[in-house]
Amino acid sequence: MNQHYQNLVQKLEEIAHLNGVMSTLGWDQEVVMPAGAGEARAKQMAALAGVIHERMTDPALGDCLNELKEKNSDRLGEVERCNIREALHSYELETKVPKQLVQELAELSSRGQGIWVMARQENKFSDFAPVLKRFLALKTEWAQRVSPDLNPYDANIDLFERGTTMDMITPIFERLKQELIPLIEAIQNHPQQPDTSFLQGRFALDKQEALARKISQDIGFNIQQGRIDVSVHPFCGGSHPTDVRITTRYKDSDFIESLYSVIHETGHALYEQGRPYEFGDLPASESLTMGIHESQSLFWERMVAQGKPFCSHYFDTIRATFPDNLQSANVDSFYRAINTCKPGFIRVEADEVTYPLHVILRYEIEKGLFDDSMRVDDLPAIWNELMWKYLGITPPTDTLGVLQDSHWSGGAFGYFPSYTLGAIYACQFYTALLSEQPDTEMNIATGNFAPIKDWLNEKIHRQGRLYTPQELVQRVTGEALSPDHFIDYLTTKYSEIYQLG
Amino acid sequence: MNQHYQNLVQKLEEIAHLNGVMSTLGWDQEVVMPAGAGEARAKQMAALAGVIHERMTDPALGDCLNELKEKNSDRLGEVERCNIREALHSYELETKVPKQLVQELAELSSRGQGIWVMARQENKFSDFAPVLKRFLALKTEWAQRVSPDLNPYDANIDLFERGTTMDMITPIFERLKQELIPLIEAIQNHPQQPDTSFLQGRFALDKQEALARKISQDIGFNIQQGRIDVSVHPFCGGSHPTDVRITTRYKDSDFIESLYSVIHETGHALYEQGRPYEFGDLPASESLTMGIHESQSLFWERMVAQGKPFCSHYFDTIRATFPDNLQSANVDSFYRAINTCKPGFIRVEADEVTYPLHVILRYEIEKGLFDDSMRVDDLPAIWNELMWKYLGITPPTDTLGVLQDSHWSGGAFGYFPSYTLGAIYACQFYTALLSEQPDTEMNIATGNFAPIKDWLNEKIHRQGRLYTPQELVQRVTGEALSPDHFIDYLTTKYSEIYQLG
Repeated sequence: MNQHYQNLVQKLEEIAHLNGVMSTLGWDQEVVMPAGAGEARAKQMAALAGVIHERMTDPALGDCLNELKEKNSDRLGEVERCNIREALHSYELETKVPKQLVQELAELSSRGQGIWVMARQENKFSDFAPVLKRFLALKTEWAQRVSPDLNPYDANIDLFERGTTMDMITPIFERLKQELIPLIEAIQNHPQQPDTSFLQGRFALDKQEALARKISQDIGFNIQQGRIDVSVHPFCGGSHPTDVRITTRYKDSDFIESLYSVIHETGHALYEQGRPYEFGDLPASESLTMGIHESQSLFWERMVAQGKPFCSHYFDTIRATFPDNLQSANVDSFYRAINTCKPGFIRVEADEVTYPLHVILRYEIEKGLFDDSMRVDDLPAIWNELMWKYLGITPPTDTLGVLQDSHWSGGAFGYFPSYTLGAIYACQFYTALLSEQPDTEMNIATGNFAPIKDWLNEKIHRQGRLYTPQELVQRVTGEALSPDHFIDYLTTKYSEIYQLG
Repeated sequence: MNQHYQNLVQKLEEIAHLNGVMSTLGWDQEVVMPAGAGEARAKQMAALAGVIHERMTDPALGDCLNELKEKNSDRLGEVERCNIREALHSYELETKVPKQLVQELAELSSRGQGIWVMARQENKFSDFAPVLKRFLALKTEWAQRVSPDLNPYDANIDLFERGTTMDMITPIFERLKQELIPLIEAIQNHPQQPDTSFLQGRFALDKQEALARKISQDIGFNIQQGRIDVSVHPFCGGSHPTDVRITTRYKDSDFIESLYSVIHETGHALYEQGRPYEFGDLPASESLTMGIHESQSLFWERMVAQGKPFCSHYFDTIRATFPDNLQSANVDSFYRAINTCKPGFIRVEADEVTYPLHVILRYEIEKGLFDDSMRVDDLPAIWNELMWKYLGITPPTDTLGVLQDSHWSGGAFGYFPSYTLGAIYACQFYTALLSEQPDTEMNIATGNFAPIKDWLNEKIHRQGRLYTPQELVQRVTGEALSPDHFIDYLTTKYSEIYQLG
């Protein structure tokens, strides 16, 4: 038994180390790789991906896992059982799908990306529709292979948010629609909108960068085991909890976007830096799901940094950084300005109130495509109809509508719900923290972030993959996932900002 | 036949791509890796090294190679025959050594490095001596395994400078001693030494960096397929001819060191960028030997950039970059100052006249250790005696003497001769270029470097591994390797600078 488990650990750690290498290559490609090296890099990554796939589908790994599964595992601790369970899950995901289907999906992802880029550029959904149709067929077949017991769309969701199904998501999203659509309407109809004029202007990039670095490290980002760089799209990467790398981009016309993007990525980074790698570089030490990851970035970006205590702590520093621009502002006007709510076409630019509706729209479309109640060719019309229904606006082009996201061009169905589940988790965690540590907002207002980071470390990051997301939420907050806190939070906050009756 | 060759190409390209990945990891570690990530990175590199070793010793690769070797290879071109020959050589190097010896060497390298660092720090050769003794025993055994027909030290040299033996090196080094020792003595005894005062002072790092970048790109470094960064020790790395990365370090008290280090690394980089990768990522497209690589860096650093035409082209730019410092200098005084010859203890700081004697000293010691005419315990005394004989100085400590280089702590015996062979090749190539293109110095003086780069590209870089170094030198220069040009060059140049009788 012990020998099998040691054998498993060795195989899993090798895979983890090779994945760390792959991740370093990905960071390098986005941040420092010379422009002309793309073709060589693609071959290097393909070679490494081939090795990793070979290791992950190694029949000896399967034998070892089945041996461990069948034996009585009473003598193993929960970490060991978690490693076996998670490794078996990955092994089955990798081996249950016929090679031809894997190859066709990979080929379509690669080709689909190019077709989507062109279709979006030329505002021509009909060019992209065949890719989407083929993906739906392949992803349905894939789902039947990997999770024959699940509805195909649920199997796709499961890949990003393990154990979460439409049965759980739909009622939550219905509640959100019911509450948020009228809230947004009331905000839009209100005669007084926040003054954001002082957020426009020119903001020197070196000052933006220094400010973002300071705040990221104040919050708890350990720069001895990480980096902050610039890339076209902000992301959190790196190869290990001791090597966590976040990126952002700086625009000289807007410092809020990059500052909050650094705070967002810092939230992801704190999760990665907080992982319990002393368990070994093994599944039990890994981050749980996309939704839980997003909860950590949104916790810091939205719950902490968009709150008034945070604004009151940093306002003087921010004004001292950009004195010409922020002369006329104060803590209160700054807080209101960064919490403006305004429906827009683009998901990634949306505020916290309208964002869930962008996600719900995509969720309903994905659901409709998988249950055949919607047809791919009708998506532009459906998209625009739902945008009007949920946000009261109509995209002038498909480029600004149904073609805006890259997810579908790579076949990532079931990913979108994670964003809003993350926001709900974040709010529920924050509420639990407030009730456990009532001086949290005072800590934030005085720049004392360590108790918050420690709490997240202990309650979430260091739990790795020991529990399902559902179990984790229950353990941390004492209740099941619920949209109530999130709705309360948004309603209270925005009623106050917009002085709604 | 063709099927076997296709099979070989696939295996070799996979290995090349994985080596490219390893090289990216190495660059990352030296240039951008967070300080705290060392342990995780070591594990990642070990996992990847394990995979590469597995691929390189794959019995299926051996079968394929033997199949190709035995069959009549008349129908294959010279590139294909080169790939087979080189792959067979690597395969044999990797497989002829018993696993236990490989492991003991790896373990000793890793441990030896730490012991050497401490011994050097504490000036205690006796702590390092046991490592050296063990290495000699293991490297002798290794040599008997991989090249039973060669003298063990020749087998070690062969690893760095294929086909070159003591029989070839010793007479060349004897000539150098005979000519250079009296030259250095004459220089030292000369009453007038060049004025170098204007090279001292403060030189802003950003200006140094901009100057180095400009000159590197003027020479021909393609920044679309490369990078220039900062690291503790300058090096040329990267993962592919389309991804070549050089580094340097900047000191604000000395701009010559970093500028010439960038030019040196640019010489290596031009070789890498000029490799014929359209042959495929295969052995035939790789750089030839350490000595030939060093010839390319020294060609640009010494033969071109330390020459008067180069100084005359760039002097105004350099003075404009550091106007306060170089006010009193002119082309001639600048040229003399950067060509100062002065014996010193440290090899890596040596000028082009004294450098060969540092190398010869090490070569004679390595030779003596392998043929048992010298004992490890006597090395400090032997070192100091030879330093006195060759350079007229005596290191005050072993830290500044026998303990200065890292090579022996990793078991790299036979590496040192490559440095001076590189200098001789460089001079012989430069002489050939001057005779083929008599307007070369005029081109340099007007900043027209393209004809020089094109000539090196065509004659050397694009030849990959098609020829042995001996064949290459013969083809490029019409004669065998000879120290004559190098001795002429140094004697003429330094007699003029020091106005020797």
